[in-house]
Amino acid sequence: MSELRSHVIAVSLDGFMAGPQQTLDTPLGEGGERLHEWMFVTSRGREMIGQSGGTTGIDDAVVVRSFARMGATIMGRNMFGPVRGPWAPVAGEEWRGWWGEDPPYHHPVFVLTHHAHEPIEMQGGTTFHFVTDGIESALEQARDAAGDDDVRLSGGAETVREYLRAGLVDELNIAVAPVLLGAGERIFDDLGDAVDRYACVEATAGEGAMHYRLRRRA
Amino acid sequence: MSELRSHVIAVSLDGFMAGPQQTLDTPLGEGGERLHEWMFVTSRGREMIGQSGGTTGIDDAVVVRSFARMGATIMGRNMFGPVRGPWAPVAGEEWRGWWGEDPPYHHPVFVLTHHAHEPIEMQGGTTFHFVTDGIESALEQARDAAGDDDVRLSGGAETVREYLRAGLVDELNIAVAPVLLGAGERIFDDLGDAVDRYACVEATAGEGAMHYRLRRRA
Repeated sequence: MSELRSHVIAVSLDGFMAGPQQTLDTPLGEGGERLHEWMFVTSRGREMIGQSGGTTGIDDAVVVRSFARMGATIMGRNMFGPVRGPWAPVAGEEWRGWWGEDPPYHHPVFVLTHHAHEPIEMQGGTTFHFVTDGIESALEQARDAAGDDDVRLSGGAETVREYLRAGLVDELNIAVAPVLLGAGERIFDDLGDAVDRYACVEATAGEGAMHYRLRRRA
Repeated sequence: MSELRSHVIAVSLDGFMAGPQQTLDTPLGEGGERLHEWMFVTSRGREMIGQSGGTTGIDDAVVVRSFARMGATIMGRNMFGPVRGPWAPVAGEEWRGWWGEDPPYHHPVFVLTHHAHEPIEMQGGTTFHFVTDGIESALEQARDAAGDDDVRLSGGAETVREYLRAGLVDELNIAVAPVLLGAGERIFDDLGDAVDRYACVEATAGEGAMHYRLRRRA
């Protein structure tokens, strides 16, 4: 069966995945972009934002691997956009994600939400589907869509924690950026028994971040 | 002036410096010894507990450096022992620390406490002094004792946080063990402005832990 994998989950040295006070201008919260600096100097990271050049070392390999054999993506609604509560236009227009008309997914993306919404078809193969009946259902739909490929669990922090608590994540890849944020959302919080179900199987020093690979115990 | 340095502050991947429920049998709390496994396989780490052999790689160098040029140590009372509140015998005897009659310090150790106590002179040059008038006083006394050498800030978590919040720590060395504890005391918590005053200046992959060196910004 295809796996559910989380990659490039960027956290600060003090454990925060996103900074406080997410807004339209700061989708990652205050200081959150500092967690991803190491990524946007890599070749694959720059390609994601439509730029060329970039490094091709360990950090780049981590980003490349995050896209390998992925046939679908799951994300929480706060990662999809800034709308809270019932759907409403943002600056007068329907919200279509943070990523422009050609998002870097190129496959079906399942957005967890309590508020139903028609699918949104973007360019380049990305279609946003909105799932209102829970994380198991989203995973089932994503697996169907992914076929033989794996499913990427994208974020945010609470969405990853939900899947971890349910024991549904097969692999979790954390990138620790050498910065202190002081506040925000922790990826490792309130995990209950899940902490015993995962083992760190690899720890690698990249050029700009430390990478930890955790797998669910057999 | 001599520096105040913290070394071998072992934390879990989820940020905990000690496990929950510290007791006489588990001074580091439940699971806390897993944070130090990487240390007790090193040559210098084994020497600390009276054993020979051990590895001599990166992790060992980190432990060796933690002792270099140290003329005094500061620790919180909970690190000194299990007694809470007024001093009282433990198992019928005066408590003299976790480390036996010849503790691995070999210099004056200043223990922060709210309860006055006569100094305790051990073998090998270690004397425990009990400081009741606050962290600045303890640092001043430790600096006097250390002479040209530095002062080691030992722990536990709350003691390190207090000195960080006060901006008194010059260098903080964290060793991240690849384990999840799920609960305990976080080293990076409620640091306020201190998070902006420290920068990670070095990140190194050891054989059994990841090492981060933070310095106070100039």
